[in-house]
Order: sequence, then structure tokens, then C-alpha cells
Amino acid sequence: MTKVLLHTTMSLDGFIAPEDDSTEWMFGYGAAGSLGMETMQRLGAVLSGRRGYDLGNRPDDGERKLYGGMWAGPVFVLTHRANDVPDDPNVTFLSDGIEDAVARAKAAAGEGDVAVLGASLSQQCLEAGLVDEVVLHVVPVLLGAGVRLFGSGGPAPLRKIGGDGVGQITDLRFAVEGRG
Amino acid sequence: MTKVLLHTTMSLDGFIAPEDDSTEWMFGYGAAGSLGMETMQRLGAVLSGRRGYDLGNRPDDGERKLYGGMWAGPVFVLTHRANDVPDDPNVTFLSDGIEDAVARAKAAAGEGDVAVLGASLSQQCLEAGLVDEVVLHVVPVLLGAGVRLFGSGGPAPLRKIGGDGVGQITDLRFAVEGRG
Repeated sequence: MTKVLLHTTMSLDGFIAPEDDSTEWMFGYGAAGSLGMETMQRLGAVLSGRRGYDLGNRPDDGERKLYGGMWAGPVFVLTHRANDVPDDPNVTFLSDGIEDAVARAKAAAGEGDVAVLGASLSQQCLEAGLVDEVVLHVVPVLLGAGVRLFGSGGPAPLRKIGGDGVGQITDLRFAVEGRG
Repeated sequence: MTKVLLHTTMSLDGFIAPEDDSTEWMFGYGAAGSLGMETMQRLGAVLSGRRGYDLGNRPDDGERKLYGGMWAGPVFVLTHRANDVPDDPNVTFLSDGIEDAVARAKAAAGEGDVAVLGASLSQQCLEAGLVDEVVLHVVPVLLGAGVRLFGSGGPAPLRKIGGDGVGQITDLRFAVEGRG
């Protein structure tokens, strides 16, 4: 059954991007664990916020592409600016709210999962009770400032269902309690 | 050689206490990994903030005692209120700043390590470059609000030097880069 996942790289102090949106902070920690690839292979669709989409489509900025440019399946982008969307044949822009967006992405995902990307969208999905799993790659750095993954919704109990703590990056997989 | 450690339990979203300072959120996740006990066994002294000390010494509030009441070695408490300290034979109150407090705790620790407890003190020590290691027990819960362990100091690169991801609680041990 299709699950809705938050899937992101996060600093130890909870940021998914520094203030300047640069990405260097997440690289240089050796071989990745297997959880990232396994999670990507389970995906059937990706749902991103508009900010993340725009960041990923600036010229000469390949590192911000979804999954480093390796994702070739359906991509949905939720935006408030329905009349101001680029002509992108690989993306379906949606503007009818979070519930609709998740439903559309799930329908497109078939037997696969839906990855929700971006802090604002992740927080909205968590608060709406739409998230089944949280998959994190925790980088051993304190950024101190930037975009926080988690907001003030909560408390929300989780249950750890996987992960890998061997490398510098700590992979963690949680089920949201009361879901699935 | 004596190391200065931050040692705390933290929610996945970075809080060491909820807004009401209750402690129930950190219990009920099964057997602890070995890192907590190993860390405690390496200690020679504990340095706490005043807020944590006061919380730990309210009547009928044993859970907030340092290490659940198991710590019997030297305890130092840094406080701005030097003229308003309780008569506690087990504690040395200090008011000459963070550098002095850490130096005093290290001197008392002998060959052991110094655990720094409390968010404010931890952030001060990090920003002053006094921390050698960060030891965390990450609880699978999103608290959403409360007392954050890490502040806006940074960025600070870390290097993972240990941990255990098997149980519900994820144990993580980091060296602060450029130290030791």
C-alpha cells in the first residue's frame, strides 16, 4: 500500500538548509547507507513545495535537483501561484490544497510510495495527519540557522522501524504512530 | 585526558524538555543502549546550569535528579545568583563565568570526563569552544516546542565517533571537529 514519507537530509540541529540554501554542508561524509537508495526505489511519485522546485530549477544548480537528478517518475508541486507556473512537461502543478495534492500524488504512485519534500509542505502534511513515515539522513553538523524541518505541531510520537548508524551520516526511519 | 561532553536526551526535533518540563516523553522506549552507561562511567564531574539544578531539587521530583539519582561524584552548578544558593553539601556553586566553571569541573574530574548538562550551559560551552564531545540519546518523538539543546551558534562540524541505532532510542556520539 502506498505510504506518504517525509524524506530528507537534516543537520543534527534540525535544519534541512542553511540560510543561503547552499548544499555543501551535506556532502563529504563518505559512502551513504542503503536507506536512501531503498527509499528512492520504493517511490512512485514525489510531491514538492514551490520553493524547493524553484531552487532546483535555477541555472547551473544541479545539486538541488530532486534526488540529484536521478528521479524520473511523476513530480507534483503544490503552489499558491497557480497562474504563475513555468512550462515544465515533467511536473504537475497543483493548487487545491494539501489533501488534494497528497491524494493526486498517491494516485499517480501506483504501488509505490510518495515522498514529500520541503519543510513547509512536510509540516503541513504532518499537522494534517497525512504522513506515514519519516526517513532522515542526519548529517554530523550543527548549522545553527536556516530552514527547520519540523515545526511547532506536536507532540507526535514516532516508532523507529529502521536505520543505519554505522557511517558518518545516521539514517533513521520512523513510522508515525497511529498510521498504517 | 579529561574531555568535556554535552550529554543529554533529546527529541528528534531537538528539544531536551517540553514547555512544562515534564519528563514522561523520554520513557517507555525499551532497554537503553550501552552508550549512556558507558558515558556515565567515564565521568569524573558534572557541571549543570542553575535551572536544571532547581528543577532537580523540587520536592517529589526524583526523575529530574542528575542521572536519575545515580551520580554520586562532584557536582558544580553555574549560577548568576551567587548570593541565593541553597545549602547543599553535595554541590559547589560557581559564579565566575563559563571558562572558570569548566576549569574547576575538569580539575575535580581527575582522569574522568566532565558532563555539561542543560541547554543554556551547553550552548555557552559550544560557543566558547569548550566542548570536546556531544553524546545524545535521541527519542523517537516530535515535541514541537520546549527547550532546544542547540542554539544559533555555528556552523560547527562534528565527527561521529560512536553510537547505537538498534533500539528505539538512537545513541549518537560525536567529536567536535578541531578539538582533541
